[in-house]
Amino acid sequence: MKIGVLGTGMVGETIGSRLIQLGHEVQMGSRSSNNEKACAWVQKAGARASQGTFADAAKFGELVFNCTKGEKSVEALRAAGKENLKGKVLIDLANPLDLNNQGTLLFCNTDSLGERIQAAFPNTKVVKTLNTMWCGIMLNPRMLKGTHNVFLAGNDQSAKSQVVELLTSFGWQNDEIVDLGDIRGARGTEMILPLWLRIYQPKGSGAFNLRIVQ
Amino acid sequence: MKIGVLGTGMVGETIGSRLIQLGHEVQMGSRSSNNEKACAWVQKAGARASQGTFADAAKFGELVFNCTKGEKSVEALRAAGKENLKGKVLIDLANPLDLNNQGTLLFCNTDSLGERIQAAFPNTKVVKTLNTMWCGIMLNPRMLKGTHNVFLAGNDQSAKSQVVELLTSFGWQNDEIVDLGDIRGARGTEMILPLWLRIYQPKGSGAFNLRIVQ
Repeated sequence: MKIGVLGTGMVGETIGSRLIQLGHEVQMGSRSSNNEKACAWVQKAGARASQGTFADAAKFGELVFNCTKGEKSVEALRAAGKENLKGKVLIDLANPLDLNNQGTLLFCNTDSLGERIQAAFPNTKVVKTLNTMWCGIMLNPRMLKGTHNVFLAGNDQSAKSQVVELLTSFGWQNDEIVDLGDIRGARGTEMILPLWLRIYQPKGSGAFNLRIVQ
Repeated sequence: MKIGVLGTGMVGETIGSRLIQLGHEVQMGSRSSNNEKACAWVQKAGARASQGTFADAAKFGELVFNCTKGEKSVEALRAAGKENLKGKVLIDLANPLDLNNQGTLLFCNTDSLGERIQAAFPNTKVVKTLNTMWCGIMLNPRMLKGTHNVFLAGNDQSAKSQVVELLTSFGWQNDEIVDLGDIRGARGTEMILPLWLRIYQPKGSGAFNLRIVQ
């Protein structure tokens, strides 16, 4: 499958490489083409990897990952272009971190980044997922012992089914994938961050995740 | 031990009954003495149970539980009285739910109820705990299969040690109790609510909890 990955940070790079490994063609998008990090990634990732602008990558992808920083995501997606994202599944795994006030979110509770993106791109099928954990685990869930959970939120059921398939290819088991309903479910997942950071800080490692125990 | 339980709702009643069962003397406090629900509870709970005003219960307790509704907690604690709470451990398990806007919090992210209570009662040792789950599980954690976690946040280490002892008496295992550091850790625990609700709604049961998987 052709997949666009927007963002050249650690998350974008990790997602892009894993998708290549799984046989997909991946174009990494950034503010301008020939971005240094994107070019370095293409060289490392091989023949099925390419790079371009946000618009190039969005146009290229049958499915698009938003791996840009949460505070810049809507702006980056506007640069990607409504037409290029129209009708497509957009997997949003960004969190709206306030980089000037560590450990807090720019907005939450009555709003979420997932909802803002869905509102700004009504003809795109936004699915919020994977944003509750470190990127190493997103793509290799079996590195932890036993089962643990990944959450999904989005308005379009067929888009969520497609995302479930992709998550399964990453190693997630079907019973680990929890559908939280419509895109407003993104709030709960983004609001995990302060707890996540408090668990992370003493460990100094993101190699953990949450499991629902019944 | 003599324990004050502020609040006559389901949480206060459940906590009070469990404490009685464990051999403690419990006074349930409410806005006015001879509150109907408090009196009914005393009759059911037996000889070691009593009731009174918030101030009576706070004075009675060597340790005090805040089981009032989050939106009214600071007000209820003011009625309990600074002097009556001075030097004592106050276990805060309320969440600042916005009852006019279901599923949202009155404040969060840069603030928490735990912090507001600690700021209003600087001579009281506030420990935030147990607020991330349904009250049935708080007091009987072994009803779920396998291990799961309870969080603690508070500025006073000896107060937290005392709370750990109490949690252990409820059935919590030491390795299930996660210290999130100072009282600002309350933010992360209160912000679990929107996710908790989205998990709860399709189940229609609060008989679940979160576990940190490594």
